[in-house]
Amino acid sequence: MDANTNNIIPHLLTAQAGPFYELEKHILDHQVKIEIWFREKWQKLPHLFTSSVDLRNAGFKICAVDANLFPAGFNNLNPDFFPLCIQAAQSTLYDLYPKCMKVLIIPENHTRNPHYYQSVATLAEIIQKSGYEVRIGSMLPISKPQQIDLPDSKSLTLYPLQKIEGKLVSDDFVPCLIILNNDLSEGIPELLQDISQPIEPPPYLGWSYRSKTHHFVFYQEICREFSELINIDMWQIFPLFLDCGEIDFVQRDGIDCLVYKSEELIEKIQQKYNEYNIEHKPFVIIKADAGTYGMAVMSVRDPQDLRKLNRKQRTSMSVGKGGRTVNRVLIQEGVYTFETIGEEQSVAEPVVYMLGPHVVGGFYRVHKARSIDESLNAPGMHFEKLAFAECCNNPHNLNGSHLTQNQFYVYSVIARLALLACCKERANK
Amino acid sequence: MDANTNNIIPHLLTAQAGPFYELEKHILDHQVKIEIWFREKWQKLPHLFTSSVDLRNAGFKICAVDANLFPAGFNNLNPDFFPLCIQAAQSTLYDLYPKCMKVLIIPENHTRNPHYYQSVATLAEIIQKSGYEVRIGSMLPISKPQQIDLPDSKSLTLYPLQKIEGKLVSDDFVPCLIILNNDLSEGIPELLQDISQPIEPPPYLGWSYRSKTHHFVFYQEICREFSELINIDMWQIFPLFLDCGEIDFVQRDGIDCLVYKSEELIEKIQQKYNEYNIEHKPFVIIKADAGTYGMAVMSVRDPQDLRKLNRKQRTSMSVGKGGRTVNRVLIQEGVYTFETIGEEQSVAEPVVYMLGPHVVGGFYRVHKARSIDESLNAPGMHFEKLAFAECCNNPHNLNGSHLTQNQFYVYSVIARLALLACCKERANK
Repeated sequence: MDANTNNIIPHLLTAQAGPFYELEKHILDHQVKIEIWFREKWQKLPHLFTSSVDLRNAGFKICAVDANLFPAGFNNLNPDFFPLCIQAAQSTLYDLYPKCMKVLIIPENHTRNPHYYQSVATLAEIIQKSGYEVRIGSMLPISKPQQIDLPDSKSLTLYPLQKIEGKLVSDDFVPCLIILNNDLSEGIPELLQDISQPIEPPPYLGWSYRSKTHHFVFYQEICREFSELINIDMWQIFPLFLDCGEIDFVQRDGIDCLVYKSEELIEKIQQKYNEYNIEHKPFVIIKADAGTYGMAVMSVRDPQDLRKLNRKQRTSMSVGKGGRTVNRVLIQEGVYTFETIGEEQSVAEPVVYMLGPHVVGGFYRVHKARSIDESLNAPGMHFEKLAFAECCNNPHNLNGSHLTQNQFYVYSVIARLALLACCKERANK
Repeated sequence: MDANTNNIIPHLLTAQAGPFYELEKHILDHQVKIEIWFREKWQKLPHLFTSSVDLRNAGFKICAVDANLFPAGFNNLNPDFFPLCIQAAQSTLYDLYPKCMKVLIIPENHTRNPHYYQSVATLAEIIQKSGYEVRIGSMLPISKPQQIDLPDSKSLTLYPLQKIEGKLVSDDFVPCLIILNNDLSEGIPELLQDISQPIEPPPYLGWSYRSKTHHFVFYQEICREFSELINIDMWQIFPLFLDCGEIDFVQRDGIDCLVYKSEELIEKIQQKYNEYNIEHKPFVIIKADAGTYGMAVMSVRDPQDLRKLNRKQRTSMSVGKGGRTVNRVLIQEGVYTFETIGEEQSVAEPVVYMLGPHVVGGFYRVHKARSIDESLNAPGMHFEKLAFAECCNNPHNLNGSHLTQNQFYVYSVIARLALLACCKERANK
């Protein structure tokens, strides 16, 4: 076992542990019922091959706060669970594309990020060991194969791509499946239009079409049903949200609406805090509706501050990945992170990874400098990644004792609720 | 990690390691091709939920020597790979019985073997954690639930069974799937006849109907195809065999034929040994065609010895599990076990476990007193069980270095060849 995963796991601050353990116990008591329910859902919805979900755990509530269909941290998973990844990929691809033998992965165009390419290489290795020929084909304008050195001292080769007679190929390599690890924030390139092979996920699930608001509408629907299933208050797993039409941060258009809705949301959160005797101050997160990479995200405690944003702040909120202009935002209940690590109590946020319907691991974003009410995924922010020390599908329901494997099972349940919401996005496009 | 699995793995005696590593390298070089081939096979054949395969590794050849559809050693698997078992059970049951929620396991009737019940409890836990309600229903004549204490100080409850209106039930528990962990050596009991729920595996795959000869005919067919796929001599993975009509050890009927055929087989083996410059003495294994539990198995170096069997030896060869009379035998090429463990060089034989098409681990039968040409699975024999230290689906093809994870991958390939043969048995019944 890697030193990195040497049973160091985050713990909840004492005041918040009690309510979490209660919810955990409740979920464990309903484990079979929950798995049956998931199974019924998977039968009705189209699956997704790769996904990751960001969680925030405040103890009194644990929520999915973002879902990503183009995860970029496969290299941060615990290598001990690599066999689990291989098996999950194997059974998922077998179910989705039983006849396929050659898989093309299309990564992001981050030519300068070796850590990202390490993740792509890890995903490629998982798929290759599942029994597929794998090639990595780049949308960068390259004319010959390009070798990228990786942090683990191996390397990866990017191949140029061509569209020939409606098929995406890389020289003599004709894939039967294209796996997209590029979020298409800048739209669907011509190269990917009108090709005959299946693309997983479909390009219409890229960030040029996805909307966080839509996602959370589906997540709400899923959480409502799940909460009824095991009889909990939906708020325990769901962050309240509102949206706010068109916005232009630079021109200050729509700021009034943003202030008004933020106040409304903070009021609602306060009511729930009162109901649960929570003495913390409510806050909201404002994020670009089509945002990713932690860009254009802002934590707001006093909505009036929104009127005082300076030019730099407004500019930073108005630009998403790839320079895209932000013109819609989601106002979401801020969820405190009361999970901390080590003596320094660094703030930790779990990220759960899935292949098909299977949770295959995850890691914590651990940050020393950020506080418990800020997003830990922000551009330029340095965070450590700490692989989950245990698997997420092996809970152990013992009376009166808290085991870390149970905490990971709770993560896996909440993450799969968000995955179901993504599957609904796919079904409804 | 359990002390039991603390990276102790058997090693091949030096003289035999070379040829094995060559075969291993060859298999690794064809890994993607092999997995694609398996995938094509799984699409054409009915699956099996539980199976285990006994291997013997002589270095110059590695073979499946027995395949079991009612494995009794789930408790001997490495607990580190429990998540892999859960995921494999989950995806297999999802594919086979998507609507099912309640599973009944029918164990053997070994009321006095707590280790066996520990295996049943482990299998039940795997299925339960996969998201099914599980009950263990016994075919013993019990009228009320009976608690069995287990070695791990937990307990297991056996429930009485009833057949009501063509359904097998246990009071108010109406299963939608019955998992048989009872090999039905004594025939299909009335309780299991004409019931409407699926039984996995079907009772006609119990030992009252199966024949090792049929199995090895299919195994031969599979091995031939596989050997052509990766261009190896089939003999490297296949033990030669002959069968010998009706036999009565007590009355000495059919012994002549047995001697004659054994001589013929030893001659054939000697030819292969000459071809490969192997200086060991060939031997054959004679085993009951419908035998299990290592009963009625005999190692023969000189076929003339078969004429000199005393009454006790003949009686022991004539009685199989449950007192069934042995009247057919299989004469199989004996495969030396050159895998040994520890300073004492105890002989070790790998047993590979599968759930559906997924290899989920295994263990070694380790025996201090047995020699390299004897069966290690024999009644009354005490062997240690040593869980596999690594997974079987994560090979790593590095030039010039032998890694244990590669050895486990080779096991997984050979074991799955035998599983395919079992699936063919199912398809052809």
